[in-house]
Amino acid sequence: MTYCVGLKLDKGLVFMSDTRTNAGVDNVSTFKKMHTWEVPGDRVITLLTAGNLATTQAVISMLDERSKAPEDRNPSVLEAPSMFRIAAIVGEVLKEVIQANANVGQKGDSSFSATMIIGGQIKGMDPRIFLVYPEGNFIEATDDTPFFQIGETKYGKPILVRAYDPGMGFEEAVKLLLVSFDSTVKSNLSVALPFDVQTYETGTLAAGRHVRITENNPHYKAISDNWSDALREAFVSLPDFRFGD
Amino acid sequence: MTYCVGLKLDKGLVFMSDTRTNAGVDNVSTFKKMHTWEVPGDRVITLLTAGNLATTQAVISMLDERSKAPEDRNPSVLEAPSMFRIAAIVGEVLKEVIQANANVGQKGDSSFSATMIIGGQIKGMDPRIFLVYPEGNFIEATDDTPFFQIGETKYGKPILVRAYDPGMGFEEAVKLLLVSFDSTVKSNLSVALPFDVQTYETGTLAAGRHVRITENNPHYKAISDNWSDALREAFVSLPDFRFGD
Repeated sequence: MTYCVGLKLDKGLVFMSDTRTNAGVDNVSTFKKMHTWEVPGDRVITLLTAGNLATTQAVISMLDERSKAPEDRNPSVLEAPSMFRIAAIVGEVLKEVIQANANVGQKGDSSFSATMIIGGQIKGMDPRIFLVYPEGNFIEATDDTPFFQIGETKYGKPILVRAYDPGMGFEEAVKLLLVSFDSTVKSNLSVALPFDVQTYETGTLAAGRHVRITENNPHYKAISDNWSDALREAFVSLPDFRFGD
Repeated sequence: MTYCVGLKLDKGLVFMSDTRTNAGVDNVSTFKKMHTWEVPGDRVITLLTAGNLATTQAVISMLDERSKAPEDRNPSVLEAPSMFRIAAIVGEVLKEVIQANANVGQKGDSSFSATMIIGGQIKGMDPRIFLVYPEGNFIEATDDTPFFQIGETKYGKPILVRAYDPGMGFEEAVKLLLVSFDSTVKSNLSVALPFDVQTYETGTLAAGRHVRITENNPHYKAISDNWSDALREAFVSLPDFRFGD
């Protein structure tokens, strides 16, 4: 499986993805599921992918136009006039790749489906985040629902819903995402470290910090080690339940 | 969907179930998913059910032998020599009911499947809890895995894993389950109040407390209202994340 989150803050955007891919539990690999395109001063776009690895890699290659010589490449994500149009392009490519595999050749046990989060900013417009479905359509994050999750979304959702605040700084948002990812990693073997983090500060039109967080990251270790105790203390601090009154 | 948990404590057993059943989101009802058989001084057995309502109700009716006149009923769960044998009986009945519906008549969109938790104590033996699969086989809770969840298990699992302690009292265990159920109710519309709670104290061979917890239960309200704040405080208490060191 996979776990990826794209989050909208007042200050900008934060993206986090895990790196585990698996075919069953006996065939496990590490692949980056985050891809960033940048034209400094004009646009920064980050894509998170969940689903069939052949599908997601094909989508990124097609968006990159890697079938052409480097000098002939003219990726439309770098030229599209708006984030809405970019989400539509990603959706079209994704739908095409899935359909190309779905109806021909041998039938596999697993599906060719994939889901993606795409977000970023283009000069003169606001930053936006979209969730793109395998059918090619998409929805946009709003103030009511300021983040999207894809992959194994359930374990990490309660803390996101409760502790997210649009006024958070980038480091606080990464801390929140680390708690959400840590809960997921502890419950689902198909989500695993290292994690990729990408931030984008509104208006800079340049990629923000990119960090790869490994098991040895001292901040991650401190957060992970302390979260169990903090949760237990939170539980103890709650009012008691009593039968019969 | 459904959410049910059966929990083993040093002091005994605790069971909790929600009451929402749904066929789509536009056909929602309230049904009890907890059933207790008691022969004071000899045995107490509690069954929790998740899955197709026609299947789970049929299983309970068959276990109860409701097709016979009351004076002729001789439910085997009240006579079986061990909890292991009772789990096997539940499994056999469950498998039969599913198979009887699965291969005849009109095909429905939804499956006839169901999963059950059965636990209790028979005189002279230890209390035991089993998880019974739709295939009719089953597994038993051990010290390593002292609880079973069925239905929508993911949202409520992280707090159970982290705050469960076998030395807990019944009221503390119910408080823990309320937090776990509250997280689930807040994330999945197909799990809802009221909740049924049943406790069993080891060695008593008599049913313990049964409580139905509604939205107006003051303890539930206090726990639910305070959990968001407690979680946020737990999050704030964690060490900070910093980029670049």
